[in-house]
Amino acid sequence: MTMPTFSAAALASRFGLLLQGEDRQVAGVATLADATPSQLSFLANPRYRSQLAQSQAGVVVLRAEDAEACTGSALIARDPYVAFARIAALFERKPVIAPGIHPTAVVDASAQVDPLASIGPLASIGARSKVAAGAVVGPGCVVGDDCELGEDCELQARVTLLTRVRLGKRVRILPGAVLGGAGFGLAMDAGHWVNVPQLGGVVIGDDCEIGANTTIDRGALGDTVLEEDVRLDNQIQIGHNVRIGAHTAMAGCSAVAGSARIGRHCLIGGGAGVLGHLEVCDRVMITAMSLVTHSIRTPGEYSSGTPLMDNRGWRKSAARFKQLDRIARRLPGSEKDPE
Amino acid sequence: MTMPTFSAAALASRFGLLLQGEDRQVAGVATLADATPSQLSFLANPRYRSQLAQSQAGVVVLRAEDAEACTGSALIARDPYVAFARIAALFERKPVIAPGIHPTAVVDASAQVDPLASIGPLASIGARSKVAAGAVVGPGCVVGDDCELGEDCELQARVTLLTRVRLGKRVRILPGAVLGGAGFGLAMDAGHWVNVPQLGGVVIGDDCEIGANTTIDRGALGDTVLEEDVRLDNQIQIGHNVRIGAHTAMAGCSAVAGSARIGRHCLIGGGAGVLGHLEVCDRVMITAMSLVTHSIRTPGEYSSGTPLMDNRGWRKSAARFKQLDRIARRLPGSEKDPE
Amino acid sequence: MTMPTFSAAALASRFGLLLQGEDRQVAGVATLADATPSQLSFLANPRYRSQLAQSQAGVVVLRAEDAEACTGSALIARDPYVAFARIAALFERKPVIAPGIHPTAVVDASAQVDPLASIGPLASIGARSKVAAGAVVGPGCVVGDDCELGEDCELQARVTLLTRVRLGKRVRILPGAVLGGAGFGLAMDAGHWVNVPQLGGVVIGDDCEIGANTTIDRGALGDTVLEEDVRLDNQIQIGHNVRIGAHTAMAGCSAVAGSARIGRHCLIGGGAGVLGHLEVCDRVMITAMSLVTHSIRTPGEYSSGTPLMDNRGWRKSAARFKQLDRIARRLPGSEKDPE
Repeated sequence: MTMPTFSAAALASRFGLLLQGEDRQVAGVATLADATPSQLSFLANPRYRSQLAQSQAGVVVLRAEDAEACTGSALIARDPYVAFARIAALFERKPVIAPGIHPTAVVDASAQVDPLASIGPLASIGARSKVAAGAVVGPGCVVGDDCELGEDCELQARVTLLTRVRLGKRVRILPGAVLGGAGFGLAMDAGHWVNVPQLGGVVIGDDCEIGANTTIDRGALGDTVLEEDVRLDNQIQIGHNVRIGAHTAMAGCSAVAGSARIGRHCLIGGGAGVLGHLEVCDRVMITAMSLVTHSIRTPGEYSSGTPLMDNRGWRKSAARFKQLDRIARRLPGSEKDPE
Repeated sequence: MTMPTFSAAALASRFGLLLQGEDRQVAGVATLADATPSQLSFLANPRYRSQLAQSQAGVVVLRAEDAEACTGSALIARDPYVAFARIAALFERKPVIAPGIHPTAVVDASAQVDPLASIGPLASIGARSKVAAGAVVGPGCVVGDDCELGEDCELQARVTLLTRVRLGKRVRILPGAVLGGAGFGLAMDAGHWVNVPQLGGVVIGDDCEIGANTTIDRGALGDTVLEEDVRLDNQIQIGHNVRIGAHTAMAGCSAVAGSARIGRHCLIGGGAGVLGHLEVCDRVMITAMSLVTHSIRTPGEYSSGTPLMDNRGWRKSAARFKQLDRIARRLPGSEKDPE
Repeated sequence: MTMPTFSAAALASRFGLLLQGEDRQVAGVATLADATPSQLSFLANPRYRSQLAQSQAGVVVLRAEDAEACTGSALIARDPYVAFARIAALFERKPVIAPGIHPTAVVDASAQVDPLASIGPLASIGARSKVAAGAVVGPGCVVGDDCELGEDCELQARVTLLTRVRLGKRVRILPGAVLGGAGFGLAMDAGHWVNVPQLGGVVIGDDCEIGANTTIDRGALGDTVLEEDVRLDNQIQIGHNVRIGAHTAMAGCSAVAGSARIGRHCLIGGGAGVLGHLEVCDRVMITAMSLVTHSIRTPGEYSSGTPLMDNRGWRKSAARFKQLDRIARRLPGSEKDPE
């Protein structure tokens, strides 16, 4: 398979960049450290600025303030990472997916699959579900009853939409994700658990992306909702009736418990957790492995946990942590009670 | 599809509740905030008491002490959440599943599938496995060799029972769960890992429920065991030879390492962890994202971690945490050593 | 099915052990507490030494220094756990897997499957992928485009290799694992996320083992790499462009963020996290649920977090943690600034 080639001048014109230096042919992309003269690279993070001088890259996408330090050809961008993302997409090798239903797929008679949709091998589509034009249901996916896939959705492989899951347009879901499972609703009755029926569904907005093995439970009453352009990494857990605001991104292994509401443009770090029924306002950043234990009303960055230490030192600090109240009370003029 | 309708008086009689006010027809359930006059709602958590006056719900299930504040029809229950769960189940829309083996399923010749069991599309059943009457193996499930499914078990979709997994009656397993994988048993020999064979199985008691993408390893010697009515949320990891007592519930993303034993009626919070070989007695509650580092012999609530703070304040506290032993030693008359 | 039987003398000769006491027939393995006279057990962990006297085991594998305390037959080993692992493997019941492609599997015309490989029921193999001799692709697995499976690899069931995943020899992958999904690469452009194309692949070295529902993203530029004999437990997340050194083992639910590098012979505890772009040198041990927030240049053990406490005591310590900087400043002659 031959890789496509583009001239730097053509890329500049296509993406609104400024070419500095001679025009060159670009046949691929790579990091500053690895790029060859026929490849394009980028400098976005200042920590890699020192690699610019040694780089063999034929063309480098960078900011105006870094242009002087670049002795070869450069494409000057307001945001080099965004420009690089758009250029790199030209070199992405994507499978050609033909519309139609694979002969090994099992589609319920009451399902509606658009002729321009693609249902892959060994996938199944349940009763009353609808798949719009351009949507792709990859190999081994299970779409249950009463689901809807909007135009150009992509379930990559082995995705499960259990029931009552409605996807907007261009939603992309990675393998192993499970949407629409029953939320964890339990009531204790005479020493035995009773299931609280989970009657709602899941609604996913346009342009959302959901990572591998991520799980999103359906609502108990009403729906679990991701607004548009929410980005979830792998192995995330979203409880029933959660609502996540537009453009929020969550890193891997984070979790939001039932009925919590996360605002727009939030960034939730890897392994972080949000307790149930809390509200987090717009533009909040939670650092990795922090636990949100109260609602957040003010945008900003929030954290919990302790810093990494060598184990010997950590053991001493940890033992003292247990004594903290006693220690504080022994201070001259100490506050008698913690807040 | 038409929704069923019930009179409040009929519900009172069926579930042993007391009707206050006029009898009304109920065609569905909803939250206090969302319910319409044809719907039933409930008040269990006192934090929602203020919503009672404004609610449009036709009927509200509530405690006797809240009845006076309810101006419309009410169903008075000792435990409104349990009563609501039972009523809501009447409105749950469940797929009708016919017994039999779907033509696309692959069933080993030595497997025994009861004629009243259902094996869904694209599922497979391995050698010597048994599926009892009323059990449902959903689309895309893989049941390996030497497994047993008790009466009325439900593997919803894309569940894997790898090998030697025995399920009691009415066990429900959500999509993506994996039971019976080899536990993480390793011995280091001359710089290279050697696998310790995992010869045991997994035994799941009656009425257990296992969430989406949860994993339960099989025992190394002997079995990994969940006693009856254990409830596991999504993305939980249970190591080999763990035993979990009856009626214990674990929230999403929690984990129990190999050979630990958890008691009965415990509640393990989301993201919490229990180290290997520990014992946790009955009626212990672990708060979210805590790590259990020693055995627990006394019922009660246990926690670790630090509270959420704005990042600037947290950085100061975190830096001081590293100095804690030094700080404690500088106190007048200080203890010389942490415990 | 009859279990095989071995004499203790034959085991001693086969694995280079020393037989003490009379020769006995061994028909299985069990723990010291559970073993019968026809079974073999082992004593490796000193905490179980007290069980030796009461054990009914016919033969016990143990160290020379424990031999005197053993009144029955013993096999003396330098490392009893390794010797036990090798002996136990003789009793492992493994399915016999015939080579060939199951009639329900879907194999792309351009894929190359060795005649001595086995493709199980309801599996699919994508374009240009190669499966070497002895490799097993279990039921429900999805192998996408441009993947390679080395000799004797084992994808147990419902494993997904999405695209550009290359496995060395004898790689074993448990159910639900997803390799080769797009890494979480995002750039914010005018309030909307743009995907950064993930053009690389995943390279897994010989003898690696990957747990159930673990996810390993493909590289953005270049590959995500596991060197030989890396052992990953269940539900682990490995970000794009991570590199993990040979013989490193990671326990369940741990995670490594994008572009981090972990050394050789490291042990990463359950639920632990490593932030992106960090470097961890060889022979580092991270305790469970710790967060690695800076690069580690010195071998050793590292930790973060606080010890488990009863909730009442923990609340006091947690409240004081928030005041830590104030407390430290009130000490006589206190340091004015943390860190």
